[in-house]
Amino acid sequence: MRIFITGGAGFIGSNLTDRLLLDNHEVTVFDNFSTGQKKFLQNANKKKKFCLIEGDLLDQNTLNSSISDHNMVFHLAANADVRFGIEDPRRDLEQNTVATHNLLEAMRNQGIRKITFASTGSIYGESSVIPTPEDAPFPIQTSLYAASKLAGEGLISAYSEGFNFESWIFRFVSILGERYTHGHVFDFYRQLKKNSSVLNVLGNGKQRKSYLYIQDCIEGLLLSLSNSKEKVNIFNLGFNGYCQVNDSIRWICQELNASPTLKFSGGDRGWIGDNPFIFLETKKIQSLGWNPKYTIQDSIKKTVQFLKNNEWVFNKKGL
Amino acid sequence: MRIFITGGAGFIGSNLTDRLLLDNHEVTVFDNFSTGQKKFLQNANKKKKFCLIEGDLLDQNTLNSSISDHNMVFHLAANADVRFGIEDPRRDLEQNTVATHNLLEAMRNQGIRKITFASTGSIYGESSVIPTPEDAPFPIQTSLYAASKLAGEGLISAYSEGFNFESWIFRFVSILGERYTHGHVFDFYRQLKKNSSVLNVLGNGKQRKSYLYIQDCIEGLLLSLSNSKEKVNIFNLGFNGYCQVNDSIRWICQELNASPTLKFSGGDRGWIGDNPFIFLETKKIQSLGWNPKYTIQDSIKKTVQFLKNNEWVFNKKGL
Repeated sequence: MRIFITGGAGFIGSNLTDRLLLDNHEVTVFDNFSTGQKKFLQNANKKKKFCLIEGDLLDQNTLNSSISDHNMVFHLAANADVRFGIEDPRRDLEQNTVATHNLLEAMRNQGIRKITFASTGSIYGESSVIPTPEDAPFPIQTSLYAASKLAGEGLISAYSEGFNFESWIFRFVSILGERYTHGHVFDFYRQLKKNSSVLNVLGNGKQRKSYLYIQDCIEGLLLSLSNSKEKVNIFNLGFNGYCQVNDSIRWICQELNASPTLKFSGGDRGWIGDNPFIFLETKKIQSLGWNPKYTIQDSIKKTVQFLKNNEWVFNKKGL
Repeated sequence: MRIFITGGAGFIGSNLTDRLLLDNHEVTVFDNFSTGQKKFLQNANKKKKFCLIEGDLLDQNTLNSSISDHNMVFHLAANADVRFGIEDPRRDLEQNTVATHNLLEAMRNQGIRKITFASTGSIYGESSVIPTPEDAPFPIQTSLYAASKLAGEGLISAYSEGFNFESWIFRFVSILGERYTHGHVFDFYRQLKKNSSVLNVLGNGKQRKSYLYIQDCIEGLLLSLSNSKEKVNIFNLGFNGYCQVNDSIRWICQELNASPTLKFSGGDRGWIGDNPFIFLETKKIQSLGWNPKYTIQDSIKKTVQFLKNNEWVFNKKGL
């Protein structure tokens, strides 16, 4: 298959690229390197079946010509920052909603009709049903990031109905592992690297969150793609459990042999729009035979190991 | 109150404008006249407390300066055409999603934090639950129009959380009555005016739809605004019942003394993305004391009467 990956130089995208090349597919990465890293594509670059295009989804002409002659698209490019949405609302609109529209138009223009979309568990807002299934009650959005992913899901579903696209939409918990470059493990590591005696924690540390290891995530994506054939296929993708932020802190500190004083900002939310309890029901994807191989603790430890061995990521533009 | 109404020259907007002026509010209508009609504002124009601004929501600067000094916003401006979304997907994105973002930014910029939004029952897609309540299972979009309204709801909810807006979101069935200028009654009337012996009907005529009379709609809006005070208030607004397209045809033909041969295009959907059964549960708004005064048959007859007395609407740009 000839596969086009938007955001293919990012955390999930570059890991997916390596895996698809291993599986002998042809892979084109389309990335504007706002947060993606060329270094993540070092291995891919050595392969004949790999092609890198530096381009932006807001540039419709470049996108149209770049996407031609592919069989399917993984749409992973996004402003993936939930926390800073209210500092610049236009960023989520453009980078996520308008970018998704442009991509769908480019696909339609070139007769490509298969799309896999990285959505988010944040889309459920503060769900009254936990663990939260795919058909949870119609949610109320609490962040601009999730609102932009909701808009993306809506567009993709409407294109599936209107233009006979086939789509796979994955609502992820936070993904961890090699090449992870934002979120709380990254923030905590950076703080402890500067000063291992104090750790500032947003909220009260009791927020309950679920995390999934990157390779488990990729297995889930590929298995679902092979085994579900609705017009619109929607799956939660997460670990079948959760931890507290305090657990995560303990595991990170163990890995770093640090014993910082914890300074909590207080309150049950880390920031405006933070969801104090994210735990997705994953029965649907598990019914296809998928199960994660790594625990939340494993994935946090693996992330810390990666950061230890790759401290260059802290000095990079956009991170 | 000083009230700003986007799309205030349209069907719902101009009726709402007249009502709010009657209730002694100051009303500013902001409309680009893509489908709105100056003639609908004839009465309003005679009032001192009325102001008309011809402007476009895509022009952020004009919008920012126009909106200053108002207490609340009714956001009714939209590309309201469900059926032709797939002919020009960018129209729903720009006129609905981006326009809503621009409006929210203008409100934030000017410190206005109350917004009422005209959403749609189409947002439920082909719901498995009928009548469909506000907390129906997470829907899958089947039209670009509804996808753009979903995006709008998401933005407004996220602004409510992030910037302390108060919002009222109404998911309408199709509204009928005076100044109605698109949809099936309009189309059927236009056809019968040209040739009263044949009527072309999309689908098999058995689609089940719910309709609400414009004044009942406005009563519902205003009552809910006074009586609900959540951060995000979401209400279905429709008639507590439905009819078949065939019933509607019969009532229209009675009013026009026409006995056309019916030519059905066939199939259980009128067009791609048409929902063959729309019927919203309205218990939530009824619990506030609202009840429609007019039946679906009443509202169809009143619409035909309006069209009879205002055939000029068929010759207008955008209609």
